[in-house]
Amino acid sequence: MPSISIAEELAKKQREISISEFFERNKQILGYDSPTKALLTVVKELCENSLDACEDAGILPDVSVSIQKSGKDEFLVAAEDNGPGIVKKEVANVFGRLLYGSRFHVLAQKRGQQGIGVSGAILYGQTTTGKPTRIRSRPAEMDVAYEVDLIIDIRRNRPSIQKEDFVAWDKPHGTRVEIPLKSRYVTGKQSPFEYLKATAIVNPHARITYLPPEGEPIVFERVTEELPPKTVEIKPHPYGIELGTFLAMAKETKSYKLSAFLAEEFSRISARVAKEICEKAGVPPEMKPKSLDLQEVKAILDAIKEVKIMAPSTDCLSPIGEKLIKKGLKNVLGALKPEFFSPPLTRDPVVWQGNPFQIEVGIVYGGDLPPDQPVDVLRFANRVPLLYQAGACAITQAVQSVDWRRYGLEQRGGEGLPYGPAIILVHVGSVKVPYTSEAKEAVASIPEIMEEIDLALKECGRRLKTHLTKKARRAKTREKFDIVQRILPKIAEKSAKIVGKKVPNLDATVTKIMGVIWIEEAIAYDAKAKKHTVTIDLHNFTSAGKKFNLHALLPRSAKLGAVDPKPKEVRDDGKVTWELKRINSVEKGTVTIELLALDKEEYDESELYVSGVSPELVIGAEPLPGDWELEYAEFEEAGEAPPPEEDEGEIDYDETEEVLEDD
Amino acid sequence: MPSISIAEELAKKQREISISEFFERNKQILGYDSPTKALLTVVKELCENSLDACEDAGILPDVSVSIQKSGKDEFLVAAEDNGPGIVKKEVANVFGRLLYGSRFHVLAQKRGQQGIGVSGAILYGQTTTGKPTRIRSRPAEMDVAYEVDLIIDIRRNRPSIQKEDFVAWDKPHGTRVEIPLKSRYVTGKQSPFEYLKATAIVNPHARITYLPPEGEPIVFERVTEELPPKTVEIKPHPYGIELGTFLAMAKETKSYKLSAFLAEEFSRISARVAKEICEKAGVPPEMKPKSLDLQEVKAILDAIKEVKIMAPSTDCLSPIGEKLIKKGLKNVLGALKPEFFSPPLTRDPVVWQGNPFQIEVGIVYGGDLPPDQPVDVLRFANRVPLLYQAGACAITQAVQSVDWRRYGLEQRGGEGLPYGPAIILVHVGSVKVPYTSEAKEAVASIPEIMEEIDLALKECGRRLKTHLTKKARRAKTREKFDIVQRILPKIAEKSAKIVGKKVPNLDATVTKIMGVIWIEEAIAYDAKAKKHTVTIDLHNFTSAGKKFNLHALLPRSAKLGAVDPKPKEVRDDGKVTWELKRINSVEKGTVTIELLALDKEEYDESELYVSGVSPELVIGAEPLPGDWELEYAEFEEAGEAPPPEEDEGEIDYDETEEVLEDD
Repeated sequence: MPSISIAEELAKKQREISISEFFERNKQILGYDSPTKALLTVVKELCENSLDACEDAGILPDVSVSIQKSGKDEFLVAAEDNGPGIVKKEVANVFGRLLYGSRFHVLAQKRGQQGIGVSGAILYGQTTTGKPTRIRSRPAEMDVAYEVDLIIDIRRNRPSIQKEDFVAWDKPHGTRVEIPLKSRYVTGKQSPFEYLKATAIVNPHARITYLPPEGEPIVFERVTEELPPKTVEIKPHPYGIELGTFLAMAKETKSYKLSAFLAEEFSRISARVAKEICEKAGVPPEMKPKSLDLQEVKAILDAIKEVKIMAPSTDCLSPIGEKLIKKGLKNVLGALKPEFFSPPLTRDPVVWQGNPFQIEVGIVYGGDLPPDQPVDVLRFANRVPLLYQAGACAITQAVQSVDWRRYGLEQRGGEGLPYGPAIILVHVGSVKVPYTSEAKEAVASIPEIMEEIDLALKECGRRLKTHLTKKARRAKTREKFDIVQRILPKIAEKSAKIVGKKVPNLDATVTKIMGVIWIEEAIAYDAKAKKHTVTIDLHNFTSAGKKFNLHALLPRSAKLGAVDPKPKEVRDDGKVTWELKRINSVEKGTVTIELLALDKEEYDESELYVSGVSPELVIGAEPLPGDWELEYAEFEEAGEAPPPEEDEGEIDYDETEEVLEDD
Repeated sequence: MPSISIAEELAKKQREISISEFFERNKQILGYDSPTKALLTVVKELCENSLDACEDAGILPDVSVSIQKSGKDEFLVAAEDNGPGIVKKEVANVFGRLLYGSRFHVLAQKRGQQGIGVSGAILYGQTTTGKPTRIRSRPAEMDVAYEVDLIIDIRRNRPSIQKEDFVAWDKPHGTRVEIPLKSRYVTGKQSPFEYLKATAIVNPHARITYLPPEGEPIVFERVTEELPPKTVEIKPHPYGIELGTFLAMAKETKSYKLSAFLAEEFSRISARVAKEICEKAGVPPEMKPKSLDLQEVKAILDAIKEVKIMAPSTDCLSPIGEKLIKKGLKNVLGALKPEFFSPPLTRDPVVWQGNPFQIEVGIVYGGDLPPDQPVDVLRFANRVPLLYQAGACAITQAVQSVDWRRYGLEQRGGEGLPYGPAIILVHVGSVKVPYTSEAKEAVASIPEIMEEIDLALKECGRRLKTHLTKKARRAKTREKFDIVQRILPKIAEKSAKIVGKKVPNLDATVTKIMGVIWIEEAIAYDAKAKKHTVTIDLHNFTSAGKKFNLHALLPRSAKLGAVDPKPKEVRDDGKVTWELKRINSVEKGTVTIELLALDKEEYDESELYVSGVSPELVIGAEPLPGDWELEYAEFEEAGEAPPPEEDEGEIDYDETEEVLEDD
């Protein structure tokens, strides 16, 4: 039986913990689980901070990261940028307080969003070495830089300045941060080098210099002078907003009327839409937002679901883009030559809990890639490579829950990481990335995000499957060709000899046996003119003349040069359509396309489709997606695998003979 | 070029964020990624809080959890306990502030350690429903209960009381918390039912009642009236303490002398050890701790590494224990009958960054378990089942990095989750569990913890392998027996007929061919007397008499009844040794053991070892671990798989004939 003392005794122990104390004791939550990982985490926090600072100010980033060994198990990590600098009175707060920053309340696609990263790194540094962090910063309008050594006063979560001064700095503006920390330096897959390289790939406008503890400096030169389109800060989108959040916003708004509150504090709600919402909810639009009660808020949220509201604008997001995804994948591959690049996919933005986000996926397959390993999954969030906590990440989980057997990869039981010669790249861009922890290593499994990644992966999977099917059909048909062309003449010769007639012309016979339209392309590249010349031959190996349409999906970034014959339609999304002239039996047609302004590796296989002809006849192009997608969608809904391919490749020798007799 | 305005403009946006605001916007970090998971997380936080409260006060927990549907997508979760209650003035703070609690600064094995869990649940509830949480609490010394409806003032991270009162409550002491939240109710693997069931299994002293939204209440009755031994709060152990942490402790200590500071604020440092540390470090023991500089602290930490300091005491930890692990696994299995229970393993406590921890592992294998699936990994931390974020967890990662092919499981490439009919249970008990996030769903990959789990898994893996090898050898030898006993008499008969002699007695011949000592056991159970009778027959099928030692590892929880013959030694850890009398060729010896006080399912196979005889001769027992472990350790270091087993099961017919001729 508890005496009076127990509850009282327990009460005495109750106390508040500062956020710094919390993380001092839970370093692993910030990504400091081990000395090796600590080094990467510090590099990551500093580098992301520098990139954000430059982009906030519209400056092309020039970031230099150095790691020096400064003692047994001790390193000094320094990052220097050409960002806008930080005004003196904010320096100590920005770096010396956790949960302090400028980006937390902003809905925009930034790398840092929490106000914890760099101050967490400083906290880790002082906890493991007892030493302060040195920060030097110079805004452009200052003649000198302000330099400060600080530690975080952990109990109070406030900066404690150890030393400060103004110093001359030849940099016109920028910030330099030097953090001492206990750690271990490794090379390999999860090393600072790999992190910086991956960062450079998806941030081609940044120049990143890396000075490793040993060896020469490495420069990842910028490959474009263009900053990514500046992302716009937005208000929350009304879809998926939580009731309590809405209520809190209503209590704090400066608007006097509900309709104004809706129109001003949410994205995509016009005055007209606001009125419509109020009407549907049965709440007067002139009502004071502060006076809304729970029932009224519920009615408003229900009304929001029923009213048609535009999708979020895309200018708050900054996708990597198809070209860079492909380039990034090529960079990862190095000297390895894959067989197939699935055209990267950038999906339209959607919303999770009011926050717009956008998924991008790219797949490479085959060739030199190791065939007997789990596929490599490259994860990115807001242009930051994610190197740790793969198992916790929505991206990995989405990859694991797709049945890749449908798309030509090996996968035990239809779940888990598939095996095969493939790399899958996924980028989640969002005005708020829901990380699983403050270490920002993995994206949480928010249902809306999982769903979008799933759809993007399946779409890319279908493209992969299309490629593999095309390849398999082509191989089978070629085999049939070979056999027919080798055996038929011999049979004909022998038969002719026996019956004492001359050997017949077999062209029509071969055609009849093959019964296909064979499409083959050749791509030549002129490096000087930066020109791809694509020649598409269309052989009619059927017994009748054929007239049909050819469609090609060309990269949006390419410019069209000379095209022959003239296409019927050229769409903005890269789709080009030809109404071909009739191709007679045993004859061929040809289409040539010049593509300008692409690097050689940016184009290596055309996506070809046909319409107006029975798709089974065609080898080397797919039926135009419309119907075909429908067909697939049906399988998916039924949860079945696609039906086995028709076995049109085997020769039926009886049939061959029959044809001969006919002749 | 940035103008003066950029740095200034950015400065204007800088502001502090309250911890409540942070988590309002990052709910997923607290485990609220999806409505389904939200329900489980709330149940989990409330249940853990109740169990901790009861155990803190030395009360046998009686916890009731109910989930009621209270609207479309809305539920009310209520948890009620018989804990010590909370004094009125603390109620609002404990529940209405994040980072406020009694357990954060305490090094002891508790479920809650962060001061975030329940207040985070309340935050989620109000954010999604706009409604307050109701708390009722009554300390034993009060005649009535205090009841309060509160929400968290998010900007200030302070409780905001909506309504409060004293109410009559028939419960003499305890606390009840009712949280309304938006969620979705599911059954299945990650459901509240499964969580509560798993909790009941590893907390057999708790009575847990569950009232699901539909259907009858379910009671997990307590199976013991004994509380687990009360865990003791400890000081940090000096091994692995961080330099900065040490420095901060030295600045804050009330001790005037370094030697006193060391002896008083750390575990396992006596006055003598403190003096030794100071001497080795070359720092005067009477020095004021506050005046220590960085060099001196470094010297002290280096000295700590060199001085022999006792391992942490074990009374701060509360392992589940071998018996309960086995029981827990049986419970998970339900009606499934496995072939083999690896004896559960509780390793000695060790330290990560000054925090003692202890690993326990159990494996079941074979029988009815599904053979073609990834093994099931059951994860526990401080007696709490972990149901989410398996991929992020040190436990899963440790399982994935063991090469299970050595231990008889299927595993592609020797890494990743193995496949096979097995369940692996791992418990991490620590005075501080390093979770990967505030959701407490996964243990971070701290190297020291990974290493210990790895060792425990490999040890259990070896036991599994031993079992499988024993089984395989037995099967092969039995096959040999069958063949020999079927063929030899026929050959003998035929030979005798040909040469016209009478058929010879083949016993000696069979023996010579077999050349094994065959050990077989039978276990009978008397439910009334709660008695296992184990009969071990030792057949000498070699051509000479054999004298050797038999060893059995019996469960520590069992009591020995009659044992015949009398053992030479009975050790505390359950090891029993017999010096057997010589067993002549073709004769057998027998050992019988009575084991008392065990349930039937607690004993189903003996772990038998032999010494003083060539281990290759023995089927049905292993060589005594000492040498055998050494042998394995060598393979492991060399990174090789163990050598293939000798193929002693096949009959060499030439040899058979030779033996016949000899005769």
